[in-house]
Amino acid sequence: MDLDPYIEFRDRLLDAGVIVASPVRGLYGKARPFVEVYDGVERLVSAEVSLDRPELFRFPPFIPRDMYLRTDYLRSFPDLIGSVHSFTGDDREHAALLNVLDDGGDWGAELSTTDLMLLPAACYPVYGMLSGRTDVDGRRFDVLGTCFRHEGSDDPARLMSFHQHEQVYVGTEDGALEFRDDWIDRSVALMGSLGLDVRPEVANDPFFGRAGKMLSRSQRESALKFEIVATVANADKPTAIVSCNCHRDHLTNAFEITGTDGAVAHSACVGFGMERIVGALFSQHGMDLAAWPSDVRDRLFP
Amino acid sequence: MDLDPYIEFRDRLLDAGVIVASPVRGLYGKARPFVEVYDGVERLVSAEVSLDRPELFRFPPFIPRDMYLRTDYLRSFPDLIGSVHSFTGDDREHAALLNVLDDGGDWGAELSTTDLMLLPAACYPVYGMLSGRTDVDGRRFDVLGTCFRHEGSDDPARLMSFHQHEQVYVGTEDGALEFRDDWIDRSVALMGSLGLDVRPEVANDPFFGRAGKMLSRSQRESALKFEIVATVANADKPTAIVSCNCHRDHLTNAFEITGTDGAVAHSACVGFGMERIVGALFSQHGMDLAAWPSDVRDRLFP
Repeated sequence: MDLDPYIEFRDRLLDAGVIVASPVRGLYGKARPFVEVYDGVERLVSAEVSLDRPELFRFPPFIPRDMYLRTDYLRSFPDLIGSVHSFTGDDREHAALLNVLDDGGDWGAELSTTDLMLLPAACYPVYGMLSGRTDVDGRRFDVLGTCFRHEGSDDPARLMSFHQHEQVYVGTEDGALEFRDDWIDRSVALMGSLGLDVRPEVANDPFFGRAGKMLSRSQRESALKFEIVATVANADKPTAIVSCNCHRDHLTNAFEITGTDGAVAHSACVGFGMERIVGALFSQHGMDLAAWPSDVRDRLFP
Repeated sequence: MDLDPYIEFRDRLLDAGVIVASPVRGLYGKARPFVEVYDGVERLVSAEVSLDRPELFRFPPFIPRDMYLRTDYLRSFPDLIGSVHSFTGDDREHAALLNVLDDGGDWGAELSTTDLMLLPAACYPVYGMLSGRTDVDGRRFDVLGTCFRHEGSDDPARLMSFHQHEQVYVGTEDGALEFRDDWIDRSVALMGSLGLDVRPEVANDPFFGRAGKMLSRSQRESALKFEIVATVANADKPTAIVSCNCHRDHLTNAFEITGTDGAVAHSACVGFGMERIVGALFSQHGMDLAAWPSDVRDRLFP
């Protein structure tokens, strides 16, 4: 019997009480073992990121719709977006909405578009905050965000809601490249210290549609995006657990961020996929925390 | 000059670099001083909640739409809801969507309703998880959730996105009442230990519309909901920073949760409004963390 490795791994996590299921694919609750490992990883990532003495911000899982449109997310990844809708009517309109619900209709379609989109990447609010600035010669930001991507899947490492702990650099072109390369080395070392068998790979974002195929190829050829991959569910197809990206002036141009020399700034980021790292650890070390290698336990639970 | 106390307090937080603004009312970023206090409060709340040895779960900021409809949130608080919409079309439909955007139209209205609603209260996924169980005689749950309520406001304590750290009890009617009363005392003591001048008050939820006024009155008369209030922005109108609620069999009935005796279970919860507690602390002790009373600093930053 050839089991789907994603379903098999997901079921092992569920059976061991590491996660709990919901009726929606890609949406899980985290039980205590998951949370304990998550907190340990978060402490280690925070400590490593802090070495650079970045400014620290925590943004909500939403981004203003106008700010969102300055990125090209809607053009490049429309299938992954989340838009927030609400009800703004009176008693009479409320009664009409409930009638649609009671008739089994699409009551969501009756709601109004709000000012908010769900945050797709933890670093976007940083560019919003810096928008229009003309003095950004090299600033670093520590952000931890709850991100949304609309991609239900049986792969327990492909969640609709997940956390990215990022450090973002905004400054010069050379500074951005150095930052990216430095963090490839440091994230390989950090993940390796947890007993994970990792390697960096050139990668691409999942651009949408026919035109997206070309964008993906071009991104790979320019080697701007690297992913640190590890086995989570499928040994034949490792999963990205950290990504190290140069954006060149793509986002800084959209948000009109320049250095004191008047040139458009460049940006780069390292993003730790927190739930994926935890998933890789359970995959590598098994479902029983007590049986994990003592050096890994010492790192995570000092 | 009679300044709006909410705007005045918000501007003090912004000027001191405790929070950062966004173009949307009720949506802020947290800067380092806010995050440090938040983490200190979270550690203290976690420690107090842990004394009861609850089961621990962390759920995403979303709830499956069908599960959501088993609560009466859409009937009682339609003005606060958040519904998640996405794009599910092909290249051709994507081009049409971008045309609506480029023409300045309501492109959000073109999206499709997904399976997800934004989570309005941290405890709802617990009832979803227990749904249909017939053996719940007294279980306790530690949950920490990112909640959404669509209510933009100048009051920096009234956020669209905020965190509730809750303990939830599901069991007997007497057990639920005891739990609620125990936590009124314990949360008053915990908040008092941080130098906050707090008191418990009978409260009601903000039920919508004309019928809602009656529901609010009836909830007050039955004294099911208590709030621990403190001054945040407005000394004349204190803000709820903790709530202690008996739900009777309202939610357990909707989710078909019974005890081993076959009777519908009762539930209760205590919810710590994390950002509001942090706001109350900045209001009480000022914008300069270094100048906070040493006993409060020792509690928060041991």
